[in-house]
Amino acid sequence: MRIILVSHGSFSKGLYQTMEMVLGPQENLAYVGLYPEQGVDILKENIEKEFKEAKENEEILVLTDLFYGSPFNAVVQLMNKYDVYHLTGINVPLLMEILIMRSNGKNAEEICEEAMKLAGSTVQDVRKYLADMMKMEEEDEECETSF
Amino acid sequence: MRIILVSHGSFSKGLYQTMEMVLGPQENLAYVGLYPEQGVDILKENIEKEFKEAKENEEILVLTDLFYGSPFNAVVQLMNKYDVYHLTGINVPLLMEILIMRSNGKNAEEICEEAMKLAGSTVQDVRKYLADMMKMEEEDEECETSF
Repeated sequence: MRIILVSHGSFSKGLYQTMEMVLGPQENLAYVGLYPEQGVDILKENIEKEFKEAKENEEILVLTDLFYGSPFNAVVQLMNKYDVYHLTGINVPLLMEILIMRSNGKNAEEICEEAMKLAGSTVQDVRKYLADMMKMEEEDEECETSF
Repeated sequence: MRIILVSHGSFSKGLYQTMEMVLGPQENLAYVGLYPEQGVDILKENIEKEFKEAKENEEILVLTDLFYGSPFNAVVQLMNKYDVYHLTGINVPLLMEILIMRSNGKNAEEICEEAMKLAGSTVQDVRKYLADMMKMEEEDEECETSF
């Protein structure tokens, strides 16, 4: 499966570089950015180039930054011509999970379904999480001293 | 309120640049990255520098890339010394919402609470969304022709 990150500016490039830092070099992962000096036509051409890099019958999963943004709209227009999967609102933990699922042999449909289930839990309020952990520890200690 | 993006590699920088492209120049928004040649101590120093840029009594909200990653852990360690808010798993739509809420005068506690409610809906399966839209349109057409 070919995975292509598409965003405004350098978000997709940063995401790509961070992913290689966290998980090591990745095969068949590409990124395309829309930059202020470019038009949307150039963006669409660049995305199409990446689509054409896929082998015959290889699934394509596109991950965009923002619902209804220009990169999102460019991909949606190309979806009339190309049969690709497309998730939007990507973040680091979700892309990690997607790459791990791909290396475990899951197909694009399975990955999209699983990613949607995971999406909500990839964002956490850490201050609240730590406060809850501390409370749990205090309650444990109370239990221990009550015996 | 000072908002600081912290990540492995260039994710935070890419996120920052994309945000300026989408929403225009942002005040009091900074980014710090952990790069392979650096240790975690340098990262912590760089984050602390950004904390110290906050005005007296100004709230600080840190947004990290990945639960239990090194940047996350560095921020958690600093939370022993600094009273900061911290969300992890940030993406483009969530940061946009956060910046808009900040400009509307919401405080960090309100923003964290609201961001956690929004988190799940910032990721969408576009192929499924388009199929649902198409189905709704077809149903509408059927209703129209039945009158």
